[in-house]
Parts: sequence; C-alpha cells; structure tokens
Amino acid sequence: MAEKFPEVEGGGSLILAWQVKNKKVLVVGGGEVAAGRILNLLNADASVTVISPTSGLNPEVAHRVQNNQVTHLDKKFEPSDLDDPDITMVLTAIDDPEASSQIWKLCKEKRLPANIADVPPECDFYFGSVHRDGPLQIMVSTNGNGPKMANIVRRRIASNLPPNMGDAIKKVGRLRKKLREVAPQVEEGPKRMQWMSKVCVQWSLEDLCDMSEEDMETLLESYAPDRVPSLVDVRGPWEFDGSFGWACVV
Amino acid sequence: MAEKFPEVEGGGSLILAWQVKNKKVLVVGGGEVAAGRILNLLNADASVTVISPTSGLNPEVAHRVQNNQVTHLDKKFEPSDLDDPDITMVLTAIDDPEASSQIWKLCKEKRLPANIADVPPECDFYFGSVHRDGPLQIMVSTNGNGPKMANIVRRRIASNLPPNMGDAIKKVGRLRKKLREVAPQVEEGPKRMQWMSKVCVQWSLEDLCDMSEEDMETLLESYAPDRVPSLVDVRGPWEFDGSFGWACVV
Repeated sequence: MAEKFPEVEGGGSLILAWQVKNKKVLVVGGGEVAAGRILNLLNADASVTVISPTSGLNPEVAHRVQNNQVTHLDKKFEPSDLDDPDITMVLTAIDDPEASSQIWKLCKEKRLPANIADVPPECDFYFGSVHRDGPLQIMVSTNGNGPKMANIVRRRIASNLPPNMGDAIKKVGRLRKKLREVAPQVEEGPKRMQWMSKVCVQWSLEDLCDMSEEDMETLLESYAPDRVPSLVDVRGPWEFDGSFGWACVV
Repeated sequence: MAEKFPEVEGGGSLILAWQVKNKKVLVVGGGEVAAGRILNLLNADASVTVISPTSGLNPEVAHRVQNNQVTHLDKKFEPSDLDDPDITMVLTAIDDPEASSQIWKLCKEKRLPANIADVPPECDFYFGSVHRDGPLQIMVSTNGNGPKMANIVRRRIASNLPPNMGDAIKKVGRLRKKLREVAPQVEEGPKRMQWMSKVCVQWSLEDLCDMSEEDMETLLESYAPDRVPSLVDVRGPWEFDGSFGWACVV
C-alpha cells in the first residue's frame, strides 16, 4: 500500500500575505482602480508613491494625497521612476496599454514584482476580495473566474463569522506573545504550540475575548504543568474584596 | 462636509494571489514544513526545485520526488544555486538559522522574494491557511496572531459554504469566457461586467451549477438587449421530445 499524501490540485494561485510595512510601493495612475490598490497598500502600512498628473486623480486618491497618506508625483511615468532601489513593488492602473506594457517590461528587467491592471499576462500577482476584522484577513480568489462571485463569497463569509472573531484573535496573539516571554527557549516550540492550540480549541470565542491581562498571567501559570483551565477556573474562587467588586483569591 | 472615503486600517498584510505557473521556485529543505510549502506551490502549478540531501527528505517530500512532481537536488544549499536567472521565489525550511540568514541576504541582493520559515523578519511574505474548492481559494491570515486560530476560522468558513460554490464559480467563469467571445470590444467592458454581475446575483447557486453549455448559449442571446432571464426562462417553453425526457423548443 502506498502511503497517503495530499493530492495535488493544480490551477490555483499561491496566496501569500505580503509584508510591505514601510516598504516603498509605486502606483502608476490615480483613477478608481488605483484608489482601491492604494487602500489595500495603506491597510498593510506600505509607503505608497502615486505617479499621476493631478488632473488624473479621482476624489479618493486626491483625498489620500491631501492627507499625506501617500507621496504624490504630479507627472506621467518615466522609466527613471524605477531607478530608486528601495522600490519593492509596482502597480499600474492607467488607460494606456502601450505605456503599461513598457512598465511591465522594465519591472521584469529589474526583477520588480508588478501588477498591470486588466492585463492578466502582465501580472506577477492578482488581487482578490478581502474581508478584514482587526488582525484577521480573509482573501477570496476565484482565480479569474469572476470578481462578482468573489464578492458574493466574501460577503457570505463575513455575515457568517461571529462579530468577535477579530477580538478573540487579538487576545490569542497577546497570550502567545506573553507565553514566548515566559518560555522563550527554542526547544519549547512544540510544547508552546500544542498548549496554545488547546487554549484555542477548549475556550469559547466569548471567553477568549473576555480574557484580561490578569487572566492571561494566571492562565500562563498552567503552561509549565501543561494544563488548560477554563476561564472560570482561571478566575475562581472569588470573594468580595471590599472595594469596587470581586477580586480573585490567588 | 468632507467626502467619505474608506478609512485606512493599518496593521494588515497585502494579500495577493501570486501567479507561479511554470515558474521556477526554489525550496531549501525537505522536512515537514517544506512538504507543506511544496504542496502549496504544486497546487499553483509552480515548477519546484527542492534542495536537500536525500537523508533529509520526509516521506511526503520523498513521494513528490519519486513521482517527478518536483526536481530534486541531493545536496546542501550553495550560493551558486541562486545563479539561475529563472528562479522567481525562494522558500527555506531548514533547522540552520545561520544558513537561513545567509540565504535571505543573498536573495535580497538579487531582489528575489523569499520566505525563511519561522523567521518573520526574514520573510517578504507569510503563508496562511487556505481553503480550496476548485477555482475558489480562500486564504485566512491572522497576521501572526495565531496559526491555530487561522485553521479554526478556515474550517468554520469551509463548513458554512455551500458544497457547490466551486462548481458555480466554474460555470460563471465559463459563461464569462463565452461572453467575451460574443462581445470582445474593450468598450463593452462595463456592460459585460454589469450583465455578469446581474447573472451572479439573480441566479441561485444551484441554477448556476446546472447551467449547461447550451443554456449558456441561450442565455448569452439576452446580453445584447441587456436582459437576464432565469434558468427556467432560458430553458422553456418545454415539451416532451419522445426520447429520454424533456427537450427545449428553440
């Protein structure tokens, strides 16, 4: 009997969470499509430079420029715009197929990842429909079969997720960080991972959301003996402390 | 009153559907993490080269090598491995922080996007938890707050989605392709997009799935007058054709 491994199912994309914080990304064009790209980039803390004559800026892009959310170069694209070695990615959204193609070729010479809007063969990557809830991002791609369907799926997902999912994830991230402070050793990696998994599975979303910094400290005392008490166990037993409410007897 | 534009919410990633079909991606390492990366890459039709001594291959990676799903170089990584100008991306998953860091630096010199597993600062991009249903891919990222929570969210999404979503999207993609054949003009773009949107919104998933090639041809006749009949309208009026069932009177 052959061992069973996951079957390969080709035809997909490699979906990646690109880290562009403080990295320079060039957006050529200032219309509606550019506005969407710029919002995506700013949500990921990129340092965005928009190249477009002011006359070509749509209201949203003009708003970003006025609020200094992006750097604006009031001009048409020139090849020398790609000379800055800090540029990490290039997106174009202009109504000029010839200029677009030229930018694509220049980017490829310089090994710069690029996306030429509306020209799939001249794209290293595509955008999808993204749902955001704090630290949680969910991206829906139909691999070119229909942006409308991607939006329908995204909205369906958003309406089915508990509204506190993002908050729960935030708390888990905080607990994880504290755990690494308590048990920083590399060899602890697998134990840390297993313990965190147990917390995520055994606690309800509501309890994860409710977890205070103090609860985290108490919960972390159970890491060494590798136990996962419930939130009630973490907080109890309780008695009145005479001040503003109930305090935990440690 | 200031115009209302979407608020920027920083702290996210730029989630992108990377196109790596037939592109050369280097995976350094052959353990469990490498196995997961390789599966992601093969699902996106990448041309994968694995660099690892045979002794370091886990069963899944060895299986991919035996089945010629990847190219295998039975050796340790050397800087000259990055000389091939066709390499488009580098992923490492080895238990050697020093070698990993060296690879990261070399990649940055060559402007090669790279991911050094378990070393977030040495990653141009992160992986997430991906749900796949044919052409549909849904990627969940918690932006480093907890891979377990990403898995929980992914499974929750998968169990809430109708099982025929992927099929419906496939059909929509097919219809979209046929529409571009019928109305290929660039200026038709907005009309094409609006008409496709109406079909996606007005038709049920079941009807989208049921749509045959013949149904598509009939439906497309309504594009010019900009109408969206239902599947019943597309197929009717019906009468018994005396053979195996009911046939459409065209």
